[in-house]
Amino acid sequence: MILEEMTMGEFESGLKITRTVLLPFGSVEEHGYHLPLSTDTIQAYEVAKSAAKIIPLFVAPPIHYGCCRSTSCHPGTISITTQTLQNLLKDIVRSLYSHGLINFVILTGHAGGTHKMALIDAGEALVAELLEIKLAVLTEYDLAYTEGKDIIETIGDAHAGEIETSRILYLYPDLVKGTGQREFPTFPTGIIVRNKRNFWANGVWGDPTKATPEKGRRINELVVRKLIEFIEAFNRYSEE
Amino acid sequence: MILEEMTMGEFESGLKITRTVLLPFGSVEEHGYHLPLSTDTIQAYEVAKSAAKIIPLFVAPPIHYGCCRSTSCHPGTISITTQTLQNLLKDIVRSLYSHGLINFVILTGHAGGTHKMALIDAGEALVAELLEIKLAVLTEYDLAYTEGKDIIETIGDAHAGEIETSRILYLYPDLVKGTGQREFPTFPTGIIVRNKRNFWANGVWGDPTKATPEKGRRINELVVRKLIEFIEAFNRYSEE
Amino acid sequence: MILEEMTMGEFESGLKITRTVLLPFGSVEEHGYHLPLSTDTIQAYEVAKSAAKIIPLFVAPPIHYGCCRSTSCHPGTISITTQTLQNLLKDIVRSLYSHGLINFVILTGHAGGTHKMALIDAGEALVAELLEIKLAVLTEYDLAYTEGKDIIETIGDAHAGEIETSRILYLYPDLVKGTGQREFPTFPTGIIVRNKRNFWANGVWGDPTKATPEKGRRINELVVRKLIEFIEAFNRYSEE
Amino acid sequence: MILEEMTMGEFESGLKITRTVLLPFGSVEEHGYHLPLSTDTIQAYEVAKSAAKIIPLFVAPPIHYGCCRSTSCHPGTISITTQTLQNLLKDIVRSLYSHGLINFVILTGHAGGTHKMALIDAGEALVAELLEIKLAVLTEYDLAYTEGKDIIETIGDAHAGEIETSRILYLYPDLVKGTGQREFPTFPTGIIVRNKRNFWANGVWGDPTKATPEKGRRINELVVRKLIEFIEAFNRYSEE
Amino acid sequence: MILEEMTMGEFESGLKITRTVLLPFGSVEEHGYHLPLSTDTIQAYEVAKSAAKIIPLFVAPPIHYGCCRSTSCHPGTISITTQTLQNLLKDIVRSLYSHGLINFVILTGHAGGTHKMALIDAGEALVAELLEIKLAVLTEYDLAYTEGKDIIETIGDAHAGEIETSRILYLYPDLVKGTGQREFPTFPTGIIVRNKRNFWANGVWGDPTKATPEKGRRINELVVRKLIEFIEAFNRYSEE
Amino acid sequence: MILEEMTMGEFESGLKITRTVLLPFGSVEEHGYHLPLSTDTIQAYEVAKSAAKIIPLFVAPPIHYGCCRSTSCHPGTISITTQTLQNLLKDIVRSLYSHGLINFVILTGHAGGTHKMALIDAGEALVAELLEIKLAVLTEYDLAYTEGKDIIETIGDAHAGEIETSRILYLYPDLVKGTGQREFPTFPTGIIVRNKRNFWANGVWGDPTKATPEKGRRINELVVRKLIEFIEAFNRYSEE
Repeated sequence: MILEEMTMGEFESGLKITRTVLLPFGSVEEHGYHLPLSTDTIQAYEVAKSAAKIIPLFVAPPIHYGCCRSTSCHPGTISITTQTLQNLLKDIVRSLYSHGLINFVILTGHAGGTHKMALIDAGEALVAELLEIKLAVLTEYDLAYTEGKDIIETIGDAHAGEIETSRILYLYPDLVKGTGQREFPTFPTGIIVRNKRNFWANGVWGDPTKATPEKGRRINELVVRKLIEFIEAFNRYSEE
Repeated sequence: MILEEMTMGEFESGLKITRTVLLPFGSVEEHGYHLPLSTDTIQAYEVAKSAAKIIPLFVAPPIHYGCCRSTSCHPGTISITTQTLQNLLKDIVRSLYSHGLINFVILTGHAGGTHKMALIDAGEALVAELLEIKLAVLTEYDLAYTEGKDIIETIGDAHAGEIETSRILYLYPDLVKGTGQREFPTFPTGIIVRNKRNFWANGVWGDPTKATPEKGRRINELVVRKLIEFIEAFNRYSEE
Repeated sequence: MILEEMTMGEFESGLKITRTVLLPFGSVEEHGYHLPLSTDTIQAYEVAKSAAKIIPLFVAPPIHYGCCRSTSCHPGTISITTQTLQNLLKDIVRSLYSHGLINFVILTGHAGGTHKMALIDAGEALVAELLEIKLAVLTEYDLAYTEGKDIIETIGDAHAGEIETSRILYLYPDLVKGTGQREFPTFPTGIIVRNKRNFWANGVWGDPTKATPEKGRRINELVVRKLIEFIEAFNRYSEE
Repeated sequence: MILEEMTMGEFESGLKITRTVLLPFGSVEEHGYHLPLSTDTIQAYEVAKSAAKIIPLFVAPPIHYGCCRSTSCHPGTISITTQTLQNLLKDIVRSLYSHGLINFVILTGHAGGTHKMALIDAGEALVAELLEIKLAVLTEYDLAYTEGKDIIETIGDAHAGEIETSRILYLYPDLVKGTGQREFPTFPTGIIVRNKRNFWANGVWGDPTKATPEKGRRINELVVRKLIEFIEAFNRYSEE
Repeated sequence: MILEEMTMGEFESGLKITRTVLLPFGSVEEHGYHLPLSTDTIQAYEVAKSAAKIIPLFVAPPIHYGCCRSTSCHPGTISITTQTLQNLLKDIVRSLYSHGLINFVILTGHAGGTHKMALIDAGEALVAELLEIKLAVLTEYDLAYTEGKDIIETIGDAHAGEIETSRILYLYPDLVKGTGQREFPTFPTGIIVRNKRNFWANGVWGDPTKATPEKGRRINELVVRKLIEFIEAFNRYSEE
Repeated sequence: MILEEMTMGEFESGLKITRTVLLPFGSVEEHGYHLPLSTDTIQAYEVAKSAAKIIPLFVAPPIHYGCCRSTSCHPGTISITTQTLQNLLKDIVRSLYSHGLINFVILTGHAGGTHKMALIDAGEALVAELLEIKLAVLTEYDLAYTEGKDIIETIGDAHAGEIETSRILYLYPDLVKGTGQREFPTFPTGIIVRNKRNFWANGVWGDPTKATPEKGRRINELVVRKLIEFIEAFNRYSEE
């Protein structure tokens, strides 16, 4: 039940099957010289669509724009404010709630700290405002990192590294340009630096040279399985 | 130069060729019982991508969420506030401007009045704030309506009618479910009605039964041509 | 029942007769070299006061300040943001609602696109917030244009042209300075231009040389009659 | 130079004579059972217009809506938030500044504490933002109170009392209904009471029975004279 | 019951004794060359703590930051916007209300006009929002001024003068550096001046040379007594 | 150079020695049944004051109120919104910057995720706005955790556990009531729960029974030393 593709009537029918909707949040963000700017969006939206083939689940169109603090100076990154991101999430949830949806799974492909916290913070406000809803915020990358720990060789692999490169190699091999370079940047602790790029030349955090499509396939499968497990538990979950 | 698919390096190279970016705005909005919720987004993004194959042009990922006043009560429509929409546009433009883009073409597939005016209003604020930029706001539907006037039979065709149905039939025939029904709703003049659906049962404004894929193909072609003409003139345009 | 002139006691008594209030929105905006800056406000407030002599109706003091996009660079125009305009409308409605008014007629003499849409957008929010109210947004100029179509000779007459000049000639002849000049400006389609005045030298859109006080008198009469009809229907209107 | 009545051309000419504009702020507020709701607006706007007959001075249309804390529960009072009032002032000043005005005299006929402080607070922000402007905030009532101290008999006369009744008797005798009643309300110190009307039955603070049109005439004259003196000094004033 | 020092359990127990909390607002503001920047905070917090030793009363940690208009240019003053101050107050009250507190005493040590009005304005909004609460706004300085009128010699003593110097001499003698100088600044009436310090060299308004610790002790005692009386009456107060 | 205690003159003199100021952020937050609500504030402010005895450093008064997501339902916790927290930080920094301070160290004793991210997010905005400043955000708890790793026995000790209890035992033994209880709460992953207390009975995360004053003393010493090192490096730090 992919909202982009459904008609009004199909939406109405879907409401009889489930009241759960997944909102995929991504970003337009540099992912090195080898991965596409939409890497985060692709991962979140693809696993969401895969899950929706297996369990009843509405999947909203991806929110392509996120808060990208550390990469905001790298070419191609588009960063919106936390305030705008939060209002966007709130407006979408309120609107879907008015149509009868009550279980909201925020799945973010972008894992930046301020981005994640902004979503959680807005989630808290929504839960306080709409007394009948349940809401969860999941970071897709964290699922991949945890589920894929036996597959991945690179320690501390994070951004455009072994995990993400493997996954895009599997999902959209044509969008991978070359192999990327191993990089582990160092930022001065605590200090808010003006030009992040000075400290992070190539925009990679991890080792993309270890990536293979097969690793990507396996991680993807594990993440989809985990996501489905989560949603099934979430649907049953009750605080009372 | 589709931002979703480009790497950081490709973005950097692209800047040497053009400083113009197109932002496609769509909506998640009912389009009758026969067209998908993303009808507006599809049209704007598809013509943008077609144009970008022919002239140098960055195309940003679609903004899937818009302000849908008249259809907000119909199942499946997601409506965000004008305030959120404006802030989203502003954040995106500011961020792209920081990377060197200076010509902004806002192409909105959704043609609702408050939605369009919100974009224009934010556009004015951006032009006042960023003294080096040029900015235009185009309604994709208006281009289709004007360019397609000799192709379309229905008078006053507007929403999910002959034009839009023809175009989705051409672009994504699988997403069209049945033929839709002719409908011309009447709202009480001036009054802000609470439940719009009471006045607009099936969410169509026009006559989808007149639609054919061939009409869609021809309109699409005309819109792409017109868009390219516009962008070329816009690139040359100078107020001085 | 003109609020400006009423005492607290008269207000209380008036509430026993009607729960309907008209809010006249105008602007401080250039209207060529021949009409006063308050042309929009005059028209809206005058017809409102005329109507209130005939039917029970509260008329609030005029809101003199509006959003003037296209004329913001012309001398004398004062333009406020859509955000401020919306908050002003919301505050006024909430305050009057606390005193027992429930039917709100927003009559705007200024017909700019962003201005009108801002009022409609705020109207929607108010209707969603205050469950007992009815609210309508009318553009005074649209009434004049429609009602006066058999009186007016100029095709596409819009701003400070035959219609508005005739009406001010009738209402406040002393405030008309000379006859004005026929002008039909052309703006580049889609582009947000920085200095609107470059494209619109004299601030007229239409043909003021065709204006006469008699035309103004007749249009005024028709608009007042139409407004009264509207309000009577609005008072009876119920969505259920 | 009353903006309401001026054309674009007259505005342009006026700029060659002065760069000073007066913004009259009023309120729609109960003034007992005998004075009109627009009492504050009338006083501020009338003295402003009188001054503008004598010295070069732009006078903007009145801002009819203010923040009325203590009378917000009395019938007929319309109270807007301090935030809206501040944004309205800021927008108007910025817009006039864009046309070349640099000296701003805020003259408020309404003298409520939060209302005045909101104007002063916004004035500070404007002075910090626009480095070339001068800005003053004057309370019309304070001028009347100080200038009229030898004319007025009532000690502690404040709202709808001897001073205001005398002035409306002089300016718009038809709008005075009866004589009003002496009243000196007592509010519990410090406590924000919910229903102010419980503590202030008739909405008068002072003694309207002492009012005469002649007192009103004399006070008005003194206030106009004082205002002119102020503006002349303000025009010469320089912080350097 | 000083919140800073209480545990979660003590807070819970305290709720069984009282539902009244005092919020002490101060400032970081120059108080001449002889008094500490936290003079306002000290006074408000100290009397609050003294009162809480005698009657059941929660005392929240001091809000050290306020709106300082007239002293914002003097070294050491930290001034926040009225908007921030109001949101801070609202957030704190809403949070405490969620735990069962319903009587709120705002005691402000800083007596600046915009600061006080901002607190009152926010207090009104809170009272309108939370239907079960009572809320009062007291200016600590006004209590001291009124209660201490027979103790203090200086007429018009206001800021860092006889009263405040006496009190800090009594409370924290080590924080008083020298004796300060008598000063009565004059600001141009009405005009918002850019650099306040030009008109107020030493930041004193009154006569600190008349200060003694004994005067401070007596004023403090009177203020504490008055505050206790107020809170006891406030606890009993009911609008019905 | 503790701002609370300094006079205007001392502030001026201090500016000749350093341009660095530390802003201590705390919280009013439950810390189990044994620690005071101000535990976070105490720790941040105490180490700041200790550091300021050794190196030139302005220390602002503590901001007692923070964003407490996970403990917002526990008695005594006061939680403000991230928006308010950010505006407070921005206002304070702008005001201090106007007096000549250019190096800002945000030291937060409260280590909640949304709280920290809100500070960092606002820090980014400030760095973008004020081109001459340097700004750092440090979490006091992270310093204690890292520096104290060889002193502390409890694995995963976090909130009101061995570290915090030891430190308050050392700094303010009188404020510790009993010993607290070992607790490691479990929240359902991803889900935003309504009543956090249901999942976290006693508000402790770690093992306070292992705490001793001596451990507290040693950790404090290490944190002060680390903080001083940081500030000295920060003062020298230049991005160029």
